[in-house]
Amino acid sequence: MEDSTAPRPVPVAPPAGPRRGLGLDEIRLTGGFWERLQRSNSDATLRHCLEWMERLGWIANFDRVADGSTGGGRPGWQFSDSEIYKLVEALAWEYGRTGRAWANETLEALVDRIAAAQDEDGYLNTCYGHPGQEPRYSDLPSGHELYCTGHLLQAAVARARTVGPDKLVEIARRAADHVCREFGDDGRAGLCGHPEIEVGLAELGRALGERRYTEQAARFVDRRGHGTLRPVALLDATYFQDDLPVREAEAWRGHAVRALYLAAGAIDVAVDTGDAGLLGAVARQWDRSVERRTYLTGGMGSRHQDEGFGEDWELPPDRAYCETCAGIGSVMVSWRLYLATGDVRYADLIERTLYNVVAASPSEDGCSFFYANPLHQRTAAADVKPGEVNPRAEGGVRAPWFDVSCCPTNLARTLASWQTYAASVEGETVSLLQYAPGEVRLALATGGLALRIETDYPHEGTVRVEVLEAPGHPVDLRMRVPHWADGATVADRSGERTAGPGWATARGLGRGDVVVLDLPVAPRLTWPDDRIDAVRGCAAVERGPLVLCVESLDLPQGWSLEDARLDPTEPPRPEGDGAVVRMRSAAAEPGASGRVPYRSTAPEGLPPGEPGRAVRLVPYHRWARRGSAAMRVFLPTS
Amino acid sequence: MEDSTAPRPVPVAPPAGPRRGLGLDEIRLTGGFWERLQRSNSDATLRHCLEWMERLGWIANFDRVADGSTGGGRPGWQFSDSEIYKLVEALAWEYGRTGRAWANETLEALVDRIAAAQDEDGYLNTCYGHPGQEPRYSDLPSGHELYCTGHLLQAAVARARTVGPDKLVEIARRAADHVCREFGDDGRAGLCGHPEIEVGLAELGRALGERRYTEQAARFVDRRGHGTLRPVALLDATYFQDDLPVREAEAWRGHAVRALYLAAGAIDVAVDTGDAGLLGAVARQWDRSVERRTYLTGGMGSRHQDEGFGEDWELPPDRAYCETCAGIGSVMVSWRLYLATGDVRYADLIERTLYNVVAASPSEDGCSFFYANPLHQRTAAADVKPGEVNPRAEGGVRAPWFDVSCCPTNLARTLASWQTYAASVEGETVSLLQYAPGEVRLALATGGLALRIETDYPHEGTVRVEVLEAPGHPVDLRMRVPHWADGATVADRSGERTAGPGWATARGLGRGDVVVLDLPVAPRLTWPDDRIDAVRGCAAVERGPLVLCVESLDLPQGWSLEDARLDPTEPPRPEGDGAVVRMRSAAAEPGASGRVPYRSTAPEGLPPGEPGRAVRLVPYHRWARRGSAAMRVFLPTS
Repeated sequence: MEDSTAPRPVPVAPPAGPRRGLGLDEIRLTGGFWERLQRSNSDATLRHCLEWMERLGWIANFDRVADGSTGGGRPGWQFSDSEIYKLVEALAWEYGRTGRAWANETLEALVDRIAAAQDEDGYLNTCYGHPGQEPRYSDLPSGHELYCTGHLLQAAVARARTVGPDKLVEIARRAADHVCREFGDDGRAGLCGHPEIEVGLAELGRALGERRYTEQAARFVDRRGHGTLRPVALLDATYFQDDLPVREAEAWRGHAVRALYLAAGAIDVAVDTGDAGLLGAVARQWDRSVERRTYLTGGMGSRHQDEGFGEDWELPPDRAYCETCAGIGSVMVSWRLYLATGDVRYADLIERTLYNVVAASPSEDGCSFFYANPLHQRTAAADVKPGEVNPRAEGGVRAPWFDVSCCPTNLARTLASWQTYAASVEGETVSLLQYAPGEVRLALATGGLALRIETDYPHEGTVRVEVLEAPGHPVDLRMRVPHWADGATVADRSGERTAGPGWATARGLGRGDVVVLDLPVAPRLTWPDDRIDAVRGCAAVERGPLVLCVESLDLPQGWSLEDARLDPTEPPRPEGDGAVVRMRSAAAEPGASGRVPYRSTAPEGLPPGEPGRAVRLVPYHRWARRGSAAMRVFLPTS
Repeated sequence: MEDSTAPRPVPVAPPAGPRRGLGLDEIRLTGGFWERLQRSNSDATLRHCLEWMERLGWIANFDRVADGSTGGGRPGWQFSDSEIYKLVEALAWEYGRTGRAWANETLEALVDRIAAAQDEDGYLNTCYGHPGQEPRYSDLPSGHELYCTGHLLQAAVARARTVGPDKLVEIARRAADHVCREFGDDGRAGLCGHPEIEVGLAELGRALGERRYTEQAARFVDRRGHGTLRPVALLDATYFQDDLPVREAEAWRGHAVRALYLAAGAIDVAVDTGDAGLLGAVARQWDRSVERRTYLTGGMGSRHQDEGFGEDWELPPDRAYCETCAGIGSVMVSWRLYLATGDVRYADLIERTLYNVVAASPSEDGCSFFYANPLHQRTAAADVKPGEVNPRAEGGVRAPWFDVSCCPTNLARTLASWQTYAASVEGETVSLLQYAPGEVRLALATGGLALRIETDYPHEGTVRVEVLEAPGHPVDLRMRVPHWADGATVADRSGERTAGPGWATARGLGRGDVVVLDLPVAPRLTWPDDRIDAVRGCAAVERGPLVLCVESLDLPQGWSLEDARLDPTEPPRPEGDGAVVRMRSAAAEPGASGRVPYRSTAPEGLPPGEPGRAVRLVPYHRWARRGSAAMRVFLPTS
């Protein structure tokens, strides 16, 4: 019988612990919401990223290092190598999941060009250390060299776990060895301005059984938080999480993607070294940050200035940054905490973030992307011209490529491996965490288990699981009941019963058994905590895991989104994949000409008896799909 | 009889037009709010700025250019020369106002060092164009060379109008001539990333009667708005106001100080060239920006990211940038529009901004400063260490100096010339615009006029004006009645009468006449326009021209500012220079652990019958004077 704890094709495989995520070879999507996104990623996004990076010369940077012609200047930011590595990682998962030849060939061609740029001693970076360039590691706060290496290592992990050791894995091994030599106890006591090397080293250490890599990751985690990194312009130590050691911080702060990648790496280190104190610290930071610094969408990052977290309760909907990559970073962290603890709350946040941040980013054709994901757009954004690099990475319009273009390739690798976040196994218990139609086939200690999952989730709330094959011994199935699912029921051989938020468990299943989970996905009103100043007096509408929003396109003729008010006394009703609510328009009294917009009289509110109009809300993840529009998630109620 | 239209010691002296501002020689403060600030500027701030800039080597940059040792690197940002020029301007006004020898000696010593760094052809900049430096004008978007020159010219205007032509004026003339040659019709068609040269050229042109300078200012105004400036990192054309010509823009946008300095320069050009279209465009931008993009304090700039204006209604109190320099820029623009049109609304905004942005910046000792002026501080900021340069320039704590330290010297020149914004004269009518105890002495066409002004404004609302001397012919006195002053009265020889917002006019005054204006300065509630999302459900308290705020220091023991709610049914009552309101504390129901802070139930509001407590509010301008604190201007009411 296969050892269920052996590494599988998954991005995160802690060697110890009672539970593991299912691999790409164990869970297959057969349709539905995520399969469509995965298909669009497969059919369009991967090639789109490749073509843009060729066109901009970011891939050719490797060629120029290899042939010695790099000189000084080069196209792309100093971290552009990482985009190629993220694309390689995406191609590795893609090939591992589908066996599609194009993915493998493209990957191998890229790896050949990357390999040719690697220095003798394992150093690999196209921006530093070659004739005409600044010296290696001469700018640790901003240089992103270790950040790029971290992404290289993650790509190699994907390759090692899908096809086994190959040229990419060998490149990564040499790069990791170089990092251990250069930054080990006998080397530089430096650290990178952008965390990422930590997760890369830790996971490659797991994949290759190299404890040294984990130890080096631990070193980097411990080195951070002592004010070592020189501030960059107006960005201080907080920006890099270099203000406080991970063990001491109360909440995430500074640049959101950095904070989250660091947290992910710290969890890896904590798990592999049995450091309960470190794990507990990150878990407490998760609690505090989720409870006070997270948007309804799961989005993180309240500030444009530093792409960073704000203070507690600082959650402006309009200037929400909610970078797509921060959403991905949040999934990375929550998934690691779920694997380490089994707490269902982590899977709840993953779902919220997947549907309302990650899924919101790509356009339907998979060739343009949101970078920032605000919850309020006051004016319809100008369209991006096809073929134009978007400089600002701001919300309101999906763009084919960005000057800082971290999100498209991050999305590509996440979608290519989506199902690795969907289920876990712990002894003889399988847990379904994210719902999508598909099949699970895995080897338990007692024999093979096969499940067929049928659902139209999140459009409908019914999830039907049929046991196609079962081991000799009965197995248990746990199905996640999201915290918003008030009134869920589960039905199995022993009848139907209510299932409170947490887990619905069906025990002692055998072949032919059917379990049906019914989650209430009717649209519902949601109210912000009173302390979130920026949305006081507002409510939002959710439907199952989907946050809804109103787009100006759906307002009655002549209405403005500025003046539309929700009638919260009338419950929202479902329509299509969204909802219909009653709204009224309170065209604001015009202010006095040339006066600041503050008055001596309280706002009057709506005229009594105004009946209002039915207005359609659409899922947030597909806003601006019908063209540029104004949009709100939180609707004023008075 | 002296010609009342001849230039006086004022920063802005349009040659044409029916009204002019009073000069430093015509209005003298004898006490009160602004005299105290002016004294602290005189006694402490001027020397403080001088010492910091010596210590940091910014002044010595001129010496190193002069002796040829500058090399490549130099301390300070590329725009640090401008800080020395602003200090020189402040010293010029200071000497012009007080005759204090130290100011003149210090100025002359600085001018000698500046003069030594001027190149043969008039070019003067310590960052470009010398051995080891980048070439002149090689980075127009970011280089700030013309910006620095603009400040040099403004300093020279101050000198020309207080002591007449001198060495500084000669330096400025040569610098201006160089700019006209270099950027004239036969020169480079370039423009500077940071507007300022426009106001400098226009005013120096007025002061020296050099029409060419005005024409060059007009050229710079017209060149902007055509996307000429290369974007700097993520900052696009809007940041520099290079997205739209001044004549076409609807509102101010992008970097607030840049937008406002440009607007000021455009008004100067419009007035001097009789360009009603250009003047009208800026006046419309003022209307729109004041009505929709301005804080209750008069502060402008809603975004930290680009120190910029937000969209209409984007006015978050917590992330309000409201840079001190933008407040000064707003005063510059409004003052020019007032001179051009006589509309009292401009003087109203000047008052609001002076009391609640400009006056908020300096500490009581005049040696530390706010750079950003937010309207909500959630957590008490960490104290700045004495002698430490503050890197972030964020709100919550006054700092002695900043990495980008534009505000202290800007404040110094503004306070040194404060009374030039306080009154104007138009034919035989004198208008009092800002109230402070003092004396006015000026020569009208028909003879000398002297007024004594007695007031404890803004603490009290009574302003008493006595005519000490009058010309043979009767004169009229207009006194501004601020737009918030509902129920003002004015009393003169012909009795007492109500005076609506606008002007209270006393006609036909002669020697010995007394006019008493009574402005109601009782604390009052103020409500934001319904479209300002970020303060929905809140009210603020104002008292006369002062915006008030609550500081955490004044809350009852055990209360948190997060939970404090205003009872708007009880009118605020005066106490000290602030007010007392009734507040209740609604300690928020704790959220579910590890859940995003959004719920399925509406917020409950306060428990009925909770009587609340009396809480003191203090003037916003002196918040954080008693130490670091949390603070709010807008108080949630439910």
